[in-house]
Amino acid sequence: MKNSIGTSITLTLAGESHGPELCVVLDGLAPGLKVDEASIAGRLASRRPQGPTDTARREKDEFRIVSGVFEGRTTGAPLTILIPNADVRSADYERFKGIARPSHADYTAHVKYAGFEDYRGGGHFSGRVTAGIVAAGAILLDALASRGILIGTHILSCAGVADRPFAAEPEKDILSLLDAEFPVLGDCAGAMCEAVAAARADGDSVGGIVQTAISGLPAGVGEPWFGSLEGQIANAVFSIGGVKGVEFGAGFALAGMRGSEANDPFRINGGRIVTGGNRNGGINGGISNGMPVVFNTAVKPTPTISRPQLTVDMLKGTECEFAFAGRHDPAIVRRICIVLTGITALVTADLLALRYGTDWLAEIK
Amino acid sequence: MKNSIGTSITLTLAGESHGPELCVVLDGLAPGLKVDEASIAGRLASRRPQGPTDTARREKDEFRIVSGVFEGRTTGAPLTILIPNADVRSADYERFKGIARPSHADYTAHVKYAGFEDYRGGGHFSGRVTAGIVAAGAILLDALASRGILIGTHILSCAGVADRPFAAEPEKDILSLLDAEFPVLGDCAGAMCEAVAAARADGDSVGGIVQTAISGLPAGVGEPWFGSLEGQIANAVFSIGGVKGVEFGAGFALAGMRGSEANDPFRINGGRIVTGGNRNGGINGGISNGMPVVFNTAVKPTPTISRPQLTVDMLKGTECEFAFAGRHDPAIVRRICIVLTGITALVTADLLALRYGTDWLAEIK
Amino acid sequence: MKNSIGTSITLTLAGESHGPELCVVLDGLAPGLKVDEASIAGRLASRRPQGPTDTARREKDEFRIVSGVFEGRTTGAPLTILIPNADVRSADYERFKGIARPSHADYTAHVKYAGFEDYRGGGHFSGRVTAGIVAAGAILLDALASRGILIGTHILSCAGVADRPFAAEPEKDILSLLDAEFPVLGDCAGAMCEAVAAARADGDSVGGIVQTAISGLPAGVGEPWFGSLEGQIANAVFSIGGVKGVEFGAGFALAGMRGSEANDPFRINGGRIVTGGNRNGGINGGISNGMPVVFNTAVKPTPTISRPQLTVDMLKGTECEFAFAGRHDPAIVRRICIVLTGITALVTADLLALRYGTDWLAEIK
Amino acid sequence: MKNSIGTSITLTLAGESHGPELCVVLDGLAPGLKVDEASIAGRLASRRPQGPTDTARREKDEFRIVSGVFEGRTTGAPLTILIPNADVRSADYERFKGIARPSHADYTAHVKYAGFEDYRGGGHFSGRVTAGIVAAGAILLDALASRGILIGTHILSCAGVADRPFAAEPEKDILSLLDAEFPVLGDCAGAMCEAVAAARADGDSVGGIVQTAISGLPAGVGEPWFGSLEGQIANAVFSIGGVKGVEFGAGFALAGMRGSEANDPFRINGGRIVTGGNRNGGINGGISNGMPVVFNTAVKPTPTISRPQLTVDMLKGTECEFAFAGRHDPAIVRRICIVLTGITALVTADLLALRYGTDWLAEIK
Repeated sequence: MKNSIGTSITLTLAGESHGPELCVVLDGLAPGLKVDEASIAGRLASRRPQGPTDTARREKDEFRIVSGVFEGRTTGAPLTILIPNADVRSADYERFKGIARPSHADYTAHVKYAGFEDYRGGGHFSGRVTAGIVAAGAILLDALASRGILIGTHILSCAGVADRPFAAEPEKDILSLLDAEFPVLGDCAGAMCEAVAAARADGDSVGGIVQTAISGLPAGVGEPWFGSLEGQIANAVFSIGGVKGVEFGAGFALAGMRGSEANDPFRINGGRIVTGGNRNGGINGGISNGMPVVFNTAVKPTPTISRPQLTVDMLKGTECEFAFAGRHDPAIVRRICIVLTGITALVTADLLALRYGTDWLAEIK
Repeated sequence: MKNSIGTSITLTLAGESHGPELCVVLDGLAPGLKVDEASIAGRLASRRPQGPTDTARREKDEFRIVSGVFEGRTTGAPLTILIPNADVRSADYERFKGIARPSHADYTAHVKYAGFEDYRGGGHFSGRVTAGIVAAGAILLDALASRGILIGTHILSCAGVADRPFAAEPEKDILSLLDAEFPVLGDCAGAMCEAVAAARADGDSVGGIVQTAISGLPAGVGEPWFGSLEGQIANAVFSIGGVKGVEFGAGFALAGMRGSEANDPFRINGGRIVTGGNRNGGINGGISNGMPVVFNTAVKPTPTISRPQLTVDMLKGTECEFAFAGRHDPAIVRRICIVLTGITALVTADLLALRYGTDWLAEIK
Repeated sequence: MKNSIGTSITLTLAGESHGPELCVVLDGLAPGLKVDEASIAGRLASRRPQGPTDTARREKDEFRIVSGVFEGRTTGAPLTILIPNADVRSADYERFKGIARPSHADYTAHVKYAGFEDYRGGGHFSGRVTAGIVAAGAILLDALASRGILIGTHILSCAGVADRPFAAEPEKDILSLLDAEFPVLGDCAGAMCEAVAAARADGDSVGGIVQTAISGLPAGVGEPWFGSLEGQIANAVFSIGGVKGVEFGAGFALAGMRGSEANDPFRINGGRIVTGGNRNGGINGGISNGMPVVFNTAVKPTPTISRPQLTVDMLKGTECEFAFAGRHDPAIVRRICIVLTGITALVTADLLALRYGTDWLAEIK
Repeated sequence: MKNSIGTSITLTLAGESHGPELCVVLDGLAPGLKVDEASIAGRLASRRPQGPTDTARREKDEFRIVSGVFEGRTTGAPLTILIPNADVRSADYERFKGIARPSHADYTAHVKYAGFEDYRGGGHFSGRVTAGIVAAGAILLDALASRGILIGTHILSCAGVADRPFAAEPEKDILSLLDAEFPVLGDCAGAMCEAVAAARADGDSVGGIVQTAISGLPAGVGEPWFGSLEGQIANAVFSIGGVKGVEFGAGFALAGMRGSEANDPFRINGGRIVTGGNRNGGINGGISNGMPVVFNTAVKPTPTISRPQLTVDMLKGTECEFAFAGRHDPAIVRRICIVLTGITALVTADLLALRYGTDWLAEIK
């Protein structure tokens, strides 16, 4: 399954940047889950370009649920969401047909698809397709929340400006992100936006690190080897364009610690086994330990910039110079937060359904 | 498939640290691949504890291939390798039955398996089980090499001592690792071993970062979303105990760059499209671009240390102190290199078989 | 993947009888395959109710391809087909909400989906959803035909009237079915339609046996155990509503033969190894042997009849009598032929892609 | 996964007829299930050749469980069973190397594996490998029985002699098969064995139809389309060598009935919804309806016979005559019963684990 993910709950992604509609099929859902169209619309609005860090492309993100929902609740049959594409300016892309935009998928798609790829706007590789993940994720996030499981993502650093990390008990932080205009926890939104604006003014782009937390996940979810919680999340997260690194807990910093510093001692708190510290990010041996699952994702700078770059014309087989003149995001770190939250919801719900059965999400705690 | 990985070529892992035999089944192999038992033995010898950084446990790693090979070549039927466990000292572990070793899987296994887990030596979670990955990987590495694809892993940093990274064209570096007693590229083996020995003398352990390169992989392998080359590798790599982070190319460092710096310009070299620089680690849009695939893996310090730690006794439900007195590795970074190389071979071979058909590996170039 | 099938080429099915649109996603296709909308429309027209054996429901089967096709050819990205539902009369079904129609899925859906199922017109269980299989199948059948592989299905028997079986070399027979108004090979269409009409006049329904042939499949496709050609086809065929039996070659009749009669001797014909007779239906040991793959599918009578039947009201928990007064098919054997041909194309194309690589279908022979 | 089956609970099969050991890995089991070695040995003894219908090959079927069991119970880690091959007479096969035995997999294996297959005794295609299914099935059957689910298979007909079908409530019949020397329900063992002996005396072989029942399966298990209970069982059953047809309930006979006769009316019995009659074999819309699941499997005559047959020498590329002079079964219908029961247990347990969670089997009802 190349464009599908999951085992018990699965998500299939289809559509292109400049095609008529995106399509996402969410299968294996418990019956009886509430489907709140306002919640989906709200999550899509968060993903939508807006403000100083994003592209000028203005999407409307109307959507239609055409299967799997009856009288406001999931039926258990596959749920299909269609999201029409609007404000498509293919002409922006016709001009540089054949040009391999550096660090984009134009060249690899050209090889893999033998020249038959839809090159307009990145085709199926476009970040536009993540709207489907966000819409499907919204349904899962509501269901998970009803079972006490919350997921949120904020910008930990961008363009040299740092946010504070999630608190040890991240529930309040996660809830605060739902209402935030800009997904940071501390008081750094202004500085970040300014730093991004400076890059845009230079015709350039910036990257960043975003941090995701899952709170309320029971201990015992995940598998020792090839279905590890880290591995399942990482595979999902690397599916998102621009991601080049994932680390759990203290991650790469652990490499520089000694064991006595890196280990999280087990303690008993109110009769429950917890850890002192969470340098392992809530996961031991690939399995959740009941502490918040916390991971960081490295997001590279948007490859599309307006500064001239060296590249090749794949059709002519010549080297050339390229400077993008259309609309693009100087940073995707703001928008990627809601996407990572959505895809993390899919992995979480799938593993819970595998562990506890397909109806678990629908049960009242 | 919880303990299996792959789609066209699959690996299934079974066995425990203190059980009689490990078992690995490699399925979907092309028929006619040479199976060189000396090559398998050599790779297993590399993984085997030895020298100053490793545990004092001395394993012999005899192995038997009991299916899938006939007259020295793969038959196309599933290939089974059995590796008996020797030098097992279960008594070391009986003493602390019920103790949740910090940052180990004892507690999560206890929750997941409801107290029925084989707790001796970490059971199925033990690094011992990676011997199966190494043995299977050896067969795949030989087959890949016959098609011009080389894979190697070295210690990029450990206990504060750094190695040089892979050269831009890593073939020579990869080949040098085959003969290396200690898997580093530069002149740092002595310093690293000393630093590890210092930690051991303190009853402590250290972690590190290891770097893997795949050279010779054709462009066009991988999928845009949920079968991305990064995601497939990451899922495989996170299956290995102690891994807490994975980054491709410049990885987390990309988050601090601007696009003009992070992008790899496309160039033409000898009629072939290449990139200037490889900050994307040979992957664009989840698909190989023909440059070496390079990724770093963060390895946490071995959780087992002899210094006393706070933890809980899961059977008594009480807090307690724990200091390990058995044999253990003060660092697994040396031994994990050969394991990462092996599991990367599995992912690489599987994606090639999916893309080009099951017989591709067996064809003479 | 509950509503998806395939490994390298996959089909995902969504939508309900009385929902706004059906959705089918076909993923893993080779790039560059021609997509002929007239061919899809033609196959859909064959499936559409018409003539004396089918329901009076008149569907238009307009369809839109909203992804995966660019300038008339597949791009390699997932291909989405949307088929709007028209002529939906939900009121027919409102009247008997809660009534478990005998031998339908109403009761099992009610248990599985805990009362949240869309009960109108059978919901996701409706034969209506097979339009998606037919549309996707049309694309695959064209691609397979370009590689010399033909697939066709005819009614072998219905309501006591028998057709002749496929000829030993079935190409001509398969091609004749493309133009046939009624999918039979011999001169029995009139008698069959009369027999069906007689059942309809009695307020009753009939079943039948349909026979499928795959011609031109190379030897060597399929797996010894759990990916056997028989098993993969059978799983696909049993997904179609009303199917209760599948047999390959002489099938159940083999049970009454002796080995000397049942075995197909190997012979050499024009330098090629063939079999004398095809009682094994082109498959030995789960793997194609180069002869035509031939199988029969048992289709039960349409469960919906207008004669009164005993059943239960699931909401009231009482026994009751039920007689359907809406539109329905007195036999689905005619319409199921095109559906079986479509789903067989999916299995065939998937196994070929797994064996020979994802681009095999797109290569010019 | 070519030689693996299942989603939540999976079985991987490896080994060859003339190799040193068979290997079966059963993964995804609930922890805490009792593993009764006597029960496994008993099931293996049932499969073992014995009496007048079977081959003269005498296997001992010693087995070793080398992982996944600790102190007599499953740990939740993959469970490996090794079964050494004894009494192997490869010389029987050396004599006809290159000869494609009619209706065997010799020719298809030769094409698929390009001449590298282990041809001795059918290699991985040998019925010998089913010992692994039987051993793994024994563990699952015990676990299912503890939840009130019973599975059994008997010979419905063989060589022209018929047994009576399962009773409408098949529990007693299933239990009677556990102790039966010959797996029939009625008084036909003598006549069947005589008919088989007659075929053997003629140097020939016979086939038959075997019938399997699952009793106690809850309603609501299975999926509407590609995970249908019929399809999942059929795929599993067709994995067994010699199977050429599968039908559920009245199966092919339904094709000749009218709907009013074929439908199973729903009734209420003791507050529970049941059906009057079970012509649908306990499945509606791919999902269990709470009645016994009943299916018939067509088994072709053993292809190996001692009468001379026409065939080809694949190495010489010539036609030739072949008469087998080694040991073989004149009928496999007796031995296949226990294998079908075992593989049905795997499918049943897997679907239950997917539906109700991985621990369901371990819970005390």
